Amino acid sequence: MHFTSEQSLDDGLLEREFTLGEIPGILWTPASASASAPVPLILLGHPPLGLRRMHPRLVDRARRSAADGFATATIELPGSGDRPRWPAIDQARAELRRAMEAGEPVSDEIVDALVLPLVDKAVPEWQAALDALLALPEIGGPVGYSGGIISIGIRLAVVEQRIAAAGLFAGSLVPRAMFEEARQVTVPLHVLLQWDDEGNDRQAALDLFDAFGSKEKSLHANMGGHTGVPQFAGDTAAQFFTRHLK
Amino acid sequence: MHFTSEQSLDDGLLEREFTLGEIPGILWTPASASASAPVPLILLGHPPLGLRRMHPRLVDRARRSAADGFATATIELPGSGDRPRWPAIDQARAELRRAMEAGEPVSDEIVDALVLPLVDKAVPEWQAALDALLALPEIGGPVGYSGGIISIGIRLAVVEQRIAAAGLFAGSLVPRAMFEEARQVTVPLHVLLQWDDEGNDRQAALDLFDAFGSKEKSLHANMGGHTGVPQFAGDTAAQFFTRHLK
Repeated sequence: MHFTSEQSLDDGLLEREFTLGEIPGILWTPASASASAPVPLILLGHPPLGLRRMHPRLVDRARRSAADGFATATIELPGSGDRPRWPAIDQARAELRRAMEAGEPVSDEIVDALVLPLVDKAVPEWQAALDALLALPEIGGPVGYSGGIISIGIRLAVVEQRIAAAGLFAGSLVPRAMFEEARQVTVPLHVLLQWDDEGNDRQAALDLFDAFGSKEKSLHANMGGHTGVPQFAGDTAAQFFTRHLK
Repeated sequence: MHFTSEQSLDDGLLEREFTLGEIPGILWTPASASASAPVPLILLGHPPLGLRRMHPRLVDRARRSAADGFATATIELPGSGDRPRWPAIDQARAELRRAMEAGEPVSDEIVDALVLPLVDKAVPEWQAALDALLALPEIGGPVGYSGGIISIGIRLAVVEQRIAAAGLFAGSLVPRAMFEEARQVTVPLHVLLQWDDEGNDRQAALDLFDAFGSKEKSLHANMGGHTGVPQFAGDTAAQFFTRHLK
């Protein structure tokens, strides 16, 4: 892990860009974080639109988490942003777009081709990032995972014992195979659902919530489309992490 | 409205029992409430088990609301507690119990007979209580309604313009006619659903949430049975009222 830039934002929030091998990432730490007082960490998931484009929204989430005493970090997804294109994923995405524009149902094949390879490749990368981040003296545990592609969150929650709580966004297409993995999730879950999410199947989201094996899981459904998550839903999610990571 | 007893609880919370005609009720006011600084009011709905039996849980809700600066009040439901029995409701309740114990589906007729007369009779009583409560110098607006039989909350939210926000508990049988009324609700809503509520039809609760006409409505589903609402769900509901009534 090599830090490539460092910038102090308002409120003492420190933003550091890094590379982990070929993978770019960003780490945000609150002013309070130090070797003698390491802070818990929340991994910030995001959609595959590239870190540069997602940066303003990620900084908002980092700033709010820092106010609660958390470090946050994220890495670029395979095939996104400045990472090499991934033709198979690009093709699956083009097929998804074609189906949606034609008003056709999105087939299981398209969803699987789009999501499963991404999960298989991304999850070990997030685990490697976690190794490197937890080796920093100012970062302690426990670790939470928040948002992004829900299937990545599910797989991480299943395979990565260091994830103690997960806030998931039921806003992306979920391969059928992930419903089985969802049953193996046992950490506390906070699931956001946009009730009128144009790109999401509400019933599938409810079925997925039902499938999670966690004893503590909450579904928070709000009005509005995919990007219309209200401010107060962010407050509730922040309280979830404070309850479980502090 | 006649006050019949007065008691100071901890934290300066004042509990006053009253009668409104033949109807018993209770008013809780925080120490901060005065004629020069009237406080907003939350009406506390409750199941038809009698105020005496519900008292510990009502005091908990009153105490938490008082900490947020709210007065709270409730009245006895028709046919409950110290009020005269209501044979038609008692009979409907017996039929409901018989059907549930026999493992039979609960018919629309039973639900209608149990709930609709109660809504018709209770809602004007809650409105009369609201008249009397708002006439007290230490009680101001706005007014919220919280919990209890959801059909009473729906009707109140539709007919009573002074209700500015409602926190509803999707935990009781809902007559089909109430789904139509739900479409007419426009105030902000915070709906709690216990995902594994043994006495409740989850899909009906989701359909009801979908039916509400409110632009701001949130569904908060948590694990556990009818009485297992977690502590943190109460925190989120309290924040909902603070957002809308202060």
